[in-house]
Amino acid sequence: MYPGATNTLVDVPGLQVGHADLEGEGALSGTTVVLPGPEGAVAGVDVRGGGPGTRETDALDPRTLVERIHAVVLTGGSAYGLAAASGVADALGAAGRGFPVGRGPGEVVPVVPAAVVFDLGRGGRFAARPTAETGAQALAACTDAPPAQGVVGAGRGTVVGGLKGGVGSASSVLSDGTVVAALVVANAAGSAVDPATGELWAARHLHPGDVEPPALPADRTALLAALREAAAPPTLNTTIGVVATDAGLSVAQCAKLAAVGQSGLARAVRPAHGMTDGDTFFGLATTGRAAPDLAAVQELLTAGADCVTRAVAHAVLAARSVETPAGHWRAYRDLVG
Amino acid sequence: MYPGATNTLVDVPGLQVGHADLEGEGALSGTTVVLPGPEGAVAGVDVRGGGPGTRETDALDPRTLVERIHAVVLTGGSAYGLAAASGVADALGAAGRGFPVGRGPGEVVPVVPAAVVFDLGRGGRFAARPTAETGAQALAACTDAPPAQGVVGAGRGTVVGGLKGGVGSASSVLSDGTVVAALVVANAAGSAVDPATGELWAARHLHPGDVEPPALPADRTALLAALREAAAPPTLNTTIGVVATDAGLSVAQCAKLAAVGQSGLARAVRPAHGMTDGDTFFGLATTGRAAPDLAAVQELLTAGADCVTRAVAHAVLAARSVETPAGHWRAYRDLVG
Repeated sequence: MYPGATNTLVDVPGLQVGHADLEGEGALSGTTVVLPGPEGAVAGVDVRGGGPGTRETDALDPRTLVERIHAVVLTGGSAYGLAAASGVADALGAAGRGFPVGRGPGEVVPVVPAAVVFDLGRGGRFAARPTAETGAQALAACTDAPPAQGVVGAGRGTVVGGLKGGVGSASSVLSDGTVVAALVVANAAGSAVDPATGELWAARHLHPGDVEPPALPADRTALLAALREAAAPPTLNTTIGVVATDAGLSVAQCAKLAAVGQSGLARAVRPAHGMTDGDTFFGLATTGRAAPDLAAVQELLTAGADCVTRAVAHAVLAARSVETPAGHWRAYRDLVG
Repeated sequence: MYPGATNTLVDVPGLQVGHADLEGEGALSGTTVVLPGPEGAVAGVDVRGGGPGTRETDALDPRTLVERIHAVVLTGGSAYGLAAASGVADALGAAGRGFPVGRGPGEVVPVVPAAVVFDLGRGGRFAARPTAETGAQALAACTDAPPAQGVVGAGRGTVVGGLKGGVGSASSVLSDGTVVAALVVANAAGSAVDPATGELWAARHLHPGDVEPPALPADRTALLAALREAAAPPTLNTTIGVVATDAGLSVAQCAKLAAVGQSGLARAVRPAHGMTDGDTFFGLATTGRAAPDLAAVQELLTAGADCVTRAVAHAVLAARSVETPAGHWRAYRDLVG
């Protein structure tokens, strides 16, 4: 098993990613869109946080009619940010992309599940949050180029255990050529760093080809003290993301893939899934490949969980320190360096 | 057990209802808002349809942090209509109503769950659907006066088994004075009418004080033929609604109240909960009264289910026939009369 060509979500053939950063005074937020081809992607969801903010997740229940989604929206702005998904749905619908509901070619309803992270006020202005327009901008920015990571899109205002969070991504190619990949918006009340050593919890799960964590100083006293200081007090947070594959998964299997994504999060962040986290993952299958057998599903689930762990590490390692009128969030790299 | 003063949802002290009809050419849609007091209402949800369109339902899981919602949005426009909830959330947040997330008095996130009905294109223009502005209008229209029923708000474009649907409501006062009430937006692929007799399925569940169904003609041949003709072909539909009480219920008990609302729907519409229905109910408790004991919960659940059945009857009986460039939906009253 090794990372794909770009070690990001777009290694899954057919998936695109677009970011939009919220502009304006006091803004530190944004929106990220994951876009499959016009035929959509089979999708499931797993919500495990105590404070979720979501849209269209009930349609992903395996007992429902809808099998394919037409975009996933990950966004800042807490529940207010769900407006970004309406902007995406309107634009997709205008382009004729969606679930057909009528006789006319444009008579479609796009299925656009969304999840939000809490970042309100971090830029200095509480009301600066993504709107429908921000969502449309992120959709328009979608491309199959490797997505920017760190302080971008939905990761703009994220914080992980008091340090700066961000967007991260990682991919794996399985033994039969199947691709699995994750994109996360890391924003956790828990910490990505082992307080006893200063190492990333995810470090031991990184693969050859992943971004390497910086070397730690021999004397870690100051580093560990700074980590303790940054971590308090815990705030409302939430890690959200997508785990995707080109395997031919069912809706229920996509929900399982999303659920093991939560296991991957648990390895990267401690504590995870608390009452003030809204941790939500979407599982997507573009189904370019056939349905995997049991052994292949097992391998895929293992790799999917690891992709989330590695993506959280990439998010934290790609983040840069940010200072606004509301606070100063240091990047792990800056703390160590 | 007897109906409350107005036999509608506002018999639950503290609850208000507001409708907004979508204006403009080719529009036959709208939005209805249920608004508790500023402290919100404890809430649960039950999604049982095969084609749900929802927002913020994951936050109503009893395992999550959030216990109280600040408004419920019922809207036309299928998944596009979820935009209406963003308009409601923005307006509530601007008024300082919501879950406190910061130090400032206005630093709140309103919890605004929403569910949608399918009515796209029924007014003649597919793109005529509720927006954030429609939601804000319905919120601004909220009052504790008995809500209009029939072809209004989210019920504008509704169809039940090929006949015109609408908004309906009903209430009950229990033996200890507890109030339970329902408001539904009746839009079902199934029929509200027994095809063998032409009577409403809900008729036998009506209480003294409810709206009486019209007398049926002695020769029902034409009526039964018209019913058969109206029912085909079945379309994408969905019945959504609120079951509310002033009892001191927990989140889990509110989810149970919502679930028996689905049982009430099953008595009023056949078939219900199909793959093209997105049937979703919210259970609300304003908690002005103490927590009920088991016997009181049982009585409340029985009455809550009946309120939904009766509200569907009221919706169908309040509907008037509607003709647009896209179709002619006859009201049950007009068919019988």
